Amino acid sequence: MNKNSSNTMALTPNTSNKRETVCIFGTGDFGRALGHKLIQSGYPVVFGSRSTQVSSLIPKDAEVLSHAEAAQKAAIIIMAIQRQHYNFLTPLAEILRGKILVDISNNLKINQYPESNAEYLAQLVPGAKVVKAFNTVSAWALQSGTLDASRQVFVCGDNMEAKQMVMDIVRALGLTPLDQGTLLAAQEIENYPLQLFPMWKFPILLSFGLIVFFFFYCLIRDVIYPYVYQNTDFSFFIAISIPNRICPILALILLALVYLPGVLAAIMQLYRGTKYHRFPDWLDKWMLCRKQLGLVALAFASLHVLYTLVIPIRSFVRWRISSQIVSQALNNKTEPLNNTNAWLSDSYLALGILGFFLFVLLGITSLPSVSNNVNWREFRFVQSKLGYLTLILCTAHTLVYGGNRFLSPSSYRWYLPNAYMLSLIVPCIVLVVKFVLIFPCLDKPLTRIRQGWERNPQYSE
Amino acid sequence: MNKNSSNTMALTPNTSNKRETVCIFGTGDFGRALGHKLIQSGYPVVFGSRSTQVSSLIPKDAEVLSHAEAAQKAAIIIMAIQRQHYNFLTPLAEILRGKILVDISNNLKINQYPESNAEYLAQLVPGAKVVKAFNTVSAWALQSGTLDASRQVFVCGDNMEAKQMVMDIVRALGLTPLDQGTLLAAQEIENYPLQLFPMWKFPILLSFGLIVFFFFYCLIRDVIYPYVYQNTDFSFFIAISIPNRICPILALILLALVYLPGVLAAIMQLYRGTKYHRFPDWLDKWMLCRKQLGLVALAFASLHVLYTLVIPIRSFVRWRISSQIVSQALNNKTEPLNNTNAWLSDSYLALGILGFFLFVLLGITSLPSVSNNVNWREFRFVQSKLGYLTLILCTAHTLVYGGNRFLSPSSYRWYLPNAYMLSLIVPCIVLVVKFVLIFPCLDKPLTRIRQGWERNPQYSE
Amino acid sequence: MNKNSSNTMALTPNTSNKRETVCIFGTGDFGRALGHKLIQSGYPVVFGSRSTQVSSLIPKDAEVLSHAEAAQKAAIIIMAIQRQHYNFLTPLAEILRGKILVDISNNLKINQYPESNAEYLAQLVPGAKVVKAFNTVSAWALQSGTLDASRQVFVCGDNMEAKQMVMDIVRALGLTPLDQGTLLAAQEIENYPLQLFPMWKFPILLSFGLIVFFFFYCLIRDVIYPYVYQNTDFSFFIAISIPNRICPILALILLALVYLPGVLAAIMQLYRGTKYHRFPDWLDKWMLCRKQLGLVALAFASLHVLYTLVIPIRSFVRWRISSQIVSQALNNKTEPLNNTNAWLSDSYLALGILGFFLFVLLGITSLPSVSNNVNWREFRFVQSKLGYLTLILCTAHTLVYGGNRFLSPSSYRWYLPNAYMLSLIVPCIVLVVKFVLIFPCLDKPLTRIRQGWERNPQYSE
Repeated sequence: MNKNSSNTMALTPNTSNKRETVCIFGTGDFGRALGHKLIQSGYPVVFGSRSTQVSSLIPKDAEVLSHAEAAQKAAIIIMAIQRQHYNFLTPLAEILRGKILVDISNNLKINQYPESNAEYLAQLVPGAKVVKAFNTVSAWALQSGTLDASRQVFVCGDNMEAKQMVMDIVRALGLTPLDQGTLLAAQEIENYPLQLFPMWKFPILLSFGLIVFFFFYCLIRDVIYPYVYQNTDFSFFIAISIPNRICPILALILLALVYLPGVLAAIMQLYRGTKYHRFPDWLDKWMLCRKQLGLVALAFASLHVLYTLVIPIRSFVRWRISSQIVSQALNNKTEPLNNTNAWLSDSYLALGILGFFLFVLLGITSLPSVSNNVNWREFRFVQSKLGYLTLILCTAHTLVYGGNRFLSPSSYRWYLPNAYMLSLIVPCIVLVVKFVLIFPCLDKPLTRIRQGWERNPQYSE
Repeated sequence: MNKNSSNTMALTPNTSNKRETVCIFGTGDFGRALGHKLIQSGYPVVFGSRSTQVSSLIPKDAEVLSHAEAAQKAAIIIMAIQRQHYNFLTPLAEILRGKILVDISNNLKINQYPESNAEYLAQLVPGAKVVKAFNTVSAWALQSGTLDASRQVFVCGDNMEAKQMVMDIVRALGLTPLDQGTLLAAQEIENYPLQLFPMWKFPILLSFGLIVFFFFYCLIRDVIYPYVYQNTDFSFFIAISIPNRICPILALILLALVYLPGVLAAIMQLYRGTKYHRFPDWLDKWMLCRKQLGLVALAFASLHVLYTLVIPIRSFVRWRISSQIVSQALNNKTEPLNNTNAWLSDSYLALGILGFFLFVLLGITSLPSVSNNVNWREFRFVQSKLGYLTLILCTAHTLVYGGNRFLSPSSYRWYLPNAYMLSLIVPCIVLVVKFVLIFPCLDKPLTRIRQGWERNPQYSE
Repeated sequence: MNKNSSNTMALTPNTSNKRETVCIFGTGDFGRALGHKLIQSGYPVVFGSRSTQVSSLIPKDAEVLSHAEAAQKAAIIIMAIQRQHYNFLTPLAEILRGKILVDISNNLKINQYPESNAEYLAQLVPGAKVVKAFNTVSAWALQSGTLDASRQVFVCGDNMEAKQMVMDIVRALGLTPLDQGTLLAAQEIENYPLQLFPMWKFPILLSFGLIVFFFFYCLIRDVIYPYVYQNTDFSFFIAISIPNRICPILALILLALVYLPGVLAAIMQLYRGTKYHRFPDWLDKWMLCRKQLGLVALAFASLHVLYTLVIPIRSFVRWRISSQIVSQALNNKTEPLNNTNAWLSDSYLALGILGFFLFVLLGITSLPSVSNNVNWREFRFVQSKLGYLTLILCTAHTLVYGGNRFLSPSSYRWYLPNAYMLSLIVPCIVLVVKFVLIFPCLDKPLTRIRQGWERNPQYSE
């Protein structure tokens, strides 16, 4: 631990409490923030800078030297400079030979350059060991010490020892290093902090479009129609009644859209007689955002539940019920229990409760920590079997809710059917097609195709 | 990075973007799917096959050679063949010496063979470095690219360098490698994908049995009895009223069953005067599925909450309330506020709300990502202290719900007590015994026993 | 794998199924529990003890020798003894040279000693390779086999090979090793199991204080005032009505307190003209427990939702509504729909639903497994943008709830305003100041300051 490790000093974790000097190239904001933090954690820090004039912003305990001098003082050099200035490193190549260069840079756009910054750095200084790290941490977060967000630092590099040393520094700063493999991962690591929920864009745009459509649809049927024909002002329906129509509709349509691509893919495979043929791009993308579609659907379902449960507290509902009762009392009339209505009302509520319950279960199993703890067989069981059961329950909930209103002419205002009828189209199609696909005459060839069998083997050549 | 690594070429991550050739033995479905994926990720792939005739299914860019020729072209050989065919590798032992053999096989049954497939492979080809990986990934998932399920790939092996190289390939394919240690872990890794919620079987079967029993119990009391004696048709109770009796009963009983084994274990330890004696098998198994029991109980409690909150929306309830009010108005009668009833109703609701709230808290802390972030002291505090508080609140909720109905003879139809009374038996036993165990005369010896003290030291010999 | 590894036998994972002998110093409870478990997992175990008399408590298959003899039999020695007895190891230094010493000790208080136990051990036996591990696992949990709590074992040490071997043992016992870096991490690892929700103390104490204050405030206004002036007994309000006033008030205040420190920090930075100046300690601490404050606020918001949704089921509410309807019917009076009331009621419910929905979304994204899967930009978007939107919605919910009651004199009982009015103070201040800070004349300098610009560069010297 003492003798034999002396010659590899720079590459083994030191056993004494004294830490290794770290060099930082660049005295910008991130460089200084990192320097502050490193000094706090007990690392001697030396800055490499064009002008060695000591700026007041640089941490007091840090030395500022020229790039060449600073580089010679440390085995690890952190590049707190932007990619476009990297070329000044070329003359320093000899000094940097064997050093560990930590690339922390980010770009402004995804895939801005053909190769990642870290790989570019490795090309510029071929003798150095380049490690990509720290690019997902912000200077502000480092400085303020309040790392509410992810403490994960993605690290990649070709040299294991160099990576290990950088990971030790990451840990010393109270962050969690994540080994992402060789420098090939740098591109992905550099793109990572530039994303803003890329997988959520399609589901959110789609639901926004649907919301706008159904909002105006319901506005016409439920607010404008009674205003024109009955001269009653139901404008307050905008607050709860209309959202409570839109939410279940969106939840049902989006849930059906989660299962539609799987059904389309099955049809395509049956038609082609092979699975060794790529799906069209739109289908691939659709399949990749099914989880997000499902979660957006769950969000709308939850809102629907909340909107439904506050119904009895609403001032309008209380007024309507009490006027009905008062008029009954004044007319000296007692209505008998309508058993059919009781059955319809109770069973549509029960179907909704069970559907929502399974939906929440699906949502919980899609939490990363839960889905990482189930195997593929279990995941398939939950997401496929329970998922279809949820879709069946929710569709049945809507059908029973409709009850015998489907054929009543009063449901068609200005020839517009009730909004919930529109929402039934997609889920019914999915369920019918899925039901057809379960028949052995279709299920058997499909299973064989998915196991690798081909109807026309020459197809894929 | 260039000179000194040339002689260990096969064992260090290559710094150029050119990737190492990978050899795949076997041209079955998984072999081809993996080959496709590897080629997409930039790996040259060579297949080893009995017949070197190029099949149309094999990816175009891959070479197909005899096993011996293919093996010589790569440092890593992926075994996409079944265990029963492994013996053909024996004559190739010399060629495979020093190669990395990746065992990706699965069995059809848990613990099908005495040793794991990977260990069997290591015995067959003693000169090779065997790494277990990829067995949790399905060919279909690899092929379709839609890896909704866990992206984790468990990797184990005795040779660190070999394991590292395989883990780099796993990462290159967009999956997450998880180092599980030496080849001893292979058995567990091979059993993993064959499981289907093994820990959930007992809780789910138990609750299914209880559901059936309480369903018929409630059916007799709440539907058949009024039909026989009052000739009224309450069959629609099956949709909501009866489920809303069964759910709280099951939630309470299952929650009590979470804490019963701990109480039984304490009694056993007190009686034996030692903790160095194994519990009977049924108690051990029961203790291991307490988390699952609790989560099933939480599911029933959630359903109970939903069923309860829709009560005022139910058509039947609205009818009943309005008939009561109408008859009051017609009889010219106003009832004064019954303060005792207001107290009972409000406090049973409040107890239920608080109990459910704590129950959800317990559920959240049992999420893997949350429970991994608390230490043992914190976990014990939540699961034991808060758990018992939840049980007390839920039991009190049921007791107050009963109110003064316990002694009313009208609650006993056909001599059957209300179903909720049955649900109180187990929780009351658990709470009483736990209360007795808290007394110092029992708590002190129990604490000493759990710290290792023995009443009869020779017992354990 | 066979020839060249023979001389480093002790340091490479053995390929045969025979496991290495493990030595345990100390025959106390934890030592014995670990011994039992190791033997179960197939490790030969030898105990080192002062008295070599075989105690009946020690596992049958284990050998008990003197410390010196036992140490010579194994490459790994687990120190199941307390720190204060470590000095007996000094004479054994020569025998322990090159051995792996596993420090599993814990202290009774946080930061009890200047250096961690593991570092102290490394100083005492400088020739040994010290690894810290197992201190987060309890003997009881090991013994009973029911590891409900975290299965994580933090491991740290300066020697990579030694750490690797200990991590293999950890895995063999069915636990998950977590590499925490060099021995410098030992202090933190030793403090870990002594904590009991340290970050939650301030939010919980604060909310407890607020609960007590608002409970008595509401008790005076809602129970004592009507009792004194109207002689009506509303004591049952304690069960639901008063909690349902306290919960939303606390949720709103605590949510505002999550965003107040950020606003204060911005003012401080604007005033100082630099970000390179530490915030006062109370502000730093406040900022660090914002997540916990937010989650406690979410808990109160959830309780508020539950308390609100049971309103129509409450016996008192049913009585009040039915008396109102009966008196309407008896007075032969039908009230027309009050459109303003309908608007107010529906919009305050809708605002509450949307606010709660976003609040739950914030809670879900703060789950460790979710927040680890978003990058900093996404996290900021959710926690800052959506967080402020939640605060705005919840404040608006309360304002609209107040409606035109603000100026009604009947709301002021004993000159005390309604409790909800008090709850609006903090959120309104936060929102107004935040609104002011958005103006370009303040936002621009603030952004520049946060990017590292300074108004008075010499300030920080």
